[in-house]
Amino acid sequence: MSEIPKAPIARIIKESGAERVSEDAKEELAAYLEEVARDVAKEANKVAKVAKRKTVKADDIKLAIKNL
Amino acid sequence: MSEIPKAPIARIIKESGAERVSEDAKEELAAYLEEVARDVAKEANKVAKVAKRKTVKADDIKLAIKNL
Repeated sequence: MSEIPKAPIARIIKESGAERVSEDAKEELAAYLEEVARDVAKEANKVAKVAKRKTVKADDIKLAIKNL
Repeated sequence: MSEIPKAPIARIIKESGAERVSEDAKEELAAYLEEVARDVAKEANKVAKVAKRKTVKADDIKLAIKNL
């Protein structure tokens, strides 16, 4: 189901100072990021549609993040 | 620099209904998710430390998300 791979998530958690990271902790954070990504993407898509563009651009993402 | 790969991010944006996604839009969203991930990880690590655990667990991530 999940699009975002767990290996980079594990690295980010370790870089925060964690000695060990449980498998379900990686899954939990990956699932949360995916939820955030879907919310931002949905909003960015609306912004692009209002601008009558077929391409979602960086500015649409920036505006979507602000609007969340 | 970025840990989170762009391909899954592009898929998530397309699944939201976008026909096309610019390269910098993928980068923008990946960078934002990485920032969110680092914030959550930092907080989760604090929670684990308070609980005197060396392993970051799913509950630490859940609590960290709530605390953000």
